[in-house]
Amino acid sequence: MLDAHGTATGCLAGVRILDLTQFEAGPSCTEALAWLGAEVVKVENPKSGDPGRGSFRSKPGQDSWYFLLFNANKKSITLNLKSPRGLELVTELASKADVFVENFAPGAIERLGLGYDAIRKVNPGIIYAQVKGFGTGSPYENNLAFDMIAQACGGIMSVSGESDRPPVKPGATLGDTGTGMLLAISVLGALYRRKGTGQGERLEVAMQDAMLHYIRVCFAAQAATGKPAVRAGAKLASGGNPPAGIYPCKPGGANDYVYIYTSRANPAHWHHLLEVIGRQDLIGNPQYETGLARVEHEPEIDEMISVWTRRHDKNEAMRILGAAGIPAGAVLDTGELQNDPSFEQRGIMQTIEHRTCGPFKMPAWPVRHGGTPPTVKPAPLLGEHNDDVLGAWLGLNEDDVKGLRKEGVV
Amino acid sequence: MLDAHGTATGCLAGVRILDLTQFEAGPSCTEALAWLGAEVVKVENPKSGDPGRGSFRSKPGQDSWYFLLFNANKKSITLNLKSPRGLELVTELASKADVFVENFAPGAIERLGLGYDAIRKVNPGIIYAQVKGFGTGSPYENNLAFDMIAQACGGIMSVSGESDRPPVKPGATLGDTGTGMLLAISVLGALYRRKGTGQGERLEVAMQDAMLHYIRVCFAAQAATGKPAVRAGAKLASGGNPPAGIYPCKPGGANDYVYIYTSRANPAHWHHLLEVIGRQDLIGNPQYETGLARVEHEPEIDEMISVWTRRHDKNEAMRILGAAGIPAGAVLDTGELQNDPSFEQRGIMQTIEHRTCGPFKMPAWPVRHGGTPPTVKPAPLLGEHNDDVLGAWLGLNEDDVKGLRKEGVV
Repeated sequence: MLDAHGTATGCLAGVRILDLTQFEAGPSCTEALAWLGAEVVKVENPKSGDPGRGSFRSKPGQDSWYFLLFNANKKSITLNLKSPRGLELVTELASKADVFVENFAPGAIERLGLGYDAIRKVNPGIIYAQVKGFGTGSPYENNLAFDMIAQACGGIMSVSGESDRPPVKPGATLGDTGTGMLLAISVLGALYRRKGTGQGERLEVAMQDAMLHYIRVCFAAQAATGKPAVRAGAKLASGGNPPAGIYPCKPGGANDYVYIYTSRANPAHWHHLLEVIGRQDLIGNPQYETGLARVEHEPEIDEMISVWTRRHDKNEAMRILGAAGIPAGAVLDTGELQNDPSFEQRGIMQTIEHRTCGPFKMPAWPVRHGGTPPTVKPAPLLGEHNDDVLGAWLGLNEDDVKGLRKEGVV
Repeated sequence: MLDAHGTATGCLAGVRILDLTQFEAGPSCTEALAWLGAEVVKVENPKSGDPGRGSFRSKPGQDSWYFLLFNANKKSITLNLKSPRGLELVTELASKADVFVENFAPGAIERLGLGYDAIRKVNPGIIYAQVKGFGTGSPYENNLAFDMIAQACGGIMSVSGESDRPPVKPGATLGDTGTGMLLAISVLGALYRRKGTGQGERLEVAMQDAMLHYIRVCFAAQAATGKPAVRAGAKLASGGNPPAGIYPCKPGGANDYVYIYTSRANPAHWHHLLEVIGRQDLIGNPQYETGLARVEHEPEIDEMISVWTRRHDKNEAMRILGAAGIPAGAVLDTGELQNDPSFEQRGIMQTIEHRTCGPFKMPAWPVRHGGTPPTVKPAPLLGEHNDDVLGAWLGLNEDDVKGLRKEGVV
């Protein structure tokens, strides 16, 4: 049901997710499910919670922006999983959940006594989902991994950077969020089936494995050439006909560039581009007319385009080129995106009011449901929902929870 | 239900998806749904089909590897949407579908007469999903976009590359596959609700908007520093304590590097690393002991690590470091990944037998369901399922389809 604000809070209404994840790969997965309306209950240690609360901390005593970004729309409860009572309670919660998600280091969840076999015993219909660094059965299955390790071992870095320079790690956290999104898809597939059959399922995704999914164009290039895919700077690792790349704009800052691309599928792009840059004289010139001819004359082509782009700022260049039907885009930085009113107007960025961090404008779930992305709710404070969840899921009352707090269990 | 091979073909069994997508952003979305067991019927023009069939073509007359990678497990039918009968048939198919997905250029689907309002009229319960380059309501909503344009305008490029050099476009196709994955999540959320309520829904994702989702760590860095996030080569745009980066290995080729990272959350990583590189003498030395101290001495630290890494090849370095509990990963290229038997053994890469292209080992859906990724089936030939789908969905017989072929409709 769309709610009064046209948001999609109801897609997964009634779905209960027990969330034992931290940092980003797991939290990005469960946050997507929370944005679609699931009740996501984050289980954290009572002392300091998800270590992500302390990353990129802006002010002492506050949760980090990083935590706010990856834990919106969730609930938080605290449980000491090393105490027998804490373990008992988390197991009881798991028996009431539809989905259990974790991304601890290899072997940790089993050492806690919360492995798949243990949880399945109390809840045969559970969807049990795990993020690993390296997949079970891989020579590295016991190794630790973080985003950058996955990007190195999963091929992303080998195809990112300039051809004659070392690999770079893209700023996008593909190893984390990229993996989390694939797991979310499988969780949702399993939930769909479970709604009909009640059947549970075990899901596992490894960060290294997930990276291959995002560089399949490079695997296509390799299959065509017989050679490993290369780094191509701002150009296309997969080839493609010139022009395709970034061109310098005024005033010449670090991100003052416009990307221009002319599709092979549409030869008119090249002609329109020649018109825009005032080189109509070259329309039909065989030196430049076909994609193949332009490959041979790429440096000249890049230079004649740059003569034009240097006279414009990147936004102006993008407007002029776009209006002429040529695929073009300014290289925008996070500051420009943060301050562009279009994102807020369309609900793609939303401002939350966090109880201790104050107002924060952050990217929301970017898919619009009935015209609007789901409404972002601030990430929970540590243990904010102890009474709520332990009450609603397990029937404990306020005094019970007080007692647990006294014993150091919550 | 898991089938005999332990695969997940059944998660979305019975779900019918009418797929009017081409190239990658749309096809990657519907392929994920096909891998989870939905019946995905790709509607293509009878002449040449999805233009992606002709990208990166390896041999004349064959579908491209690119097409094979993004259209596995789907069916293909041909329909001339510019003929009245073709339009009638696609509308009838839409009336039988659960989900309709398209990623044509802005306005094209409406000009065909297949916009949301038209489809909703014949199927009020339809989940109607669209990929745009720029979102409805954006100043650029009518502009064309491709993967690289989205990566430029969505912030990805501004945080990818070296700090003192121009931005690069990561080899990962975040603008396409990255967007497709987010749409798949929303489609699945909508399907889950629809199973209970029968309710349809309109979904839209813009490639530019989707990019923000993948660089949220950079938005966190910006919130903490007050400045736009920067490019940091192979290091972390978000900061983080040294060592974190790539280190050169023998024999010194383009991808002969190992990524080494020491987590702030675990100070033992640094001590273990000093032991591995034979510098136990520095354990406890205040010049290097804390993250903050290491920031001040980063060049020295990088050099002392490089002295060790240069003596090893990247795989050996990864093994030694990993065994010592230090997060580390070799920079692997697509050739090394393609030839690593572990991926095939675990079902992460699977070899298909394509009727005209022959055998092709390709990345599969990387999430394991009950231990195994879903089985990859070869992408369809153009119109391969005309009889099958027009029969099963619309009750046409072989002669009907023959007639349509004669009239140029299929």
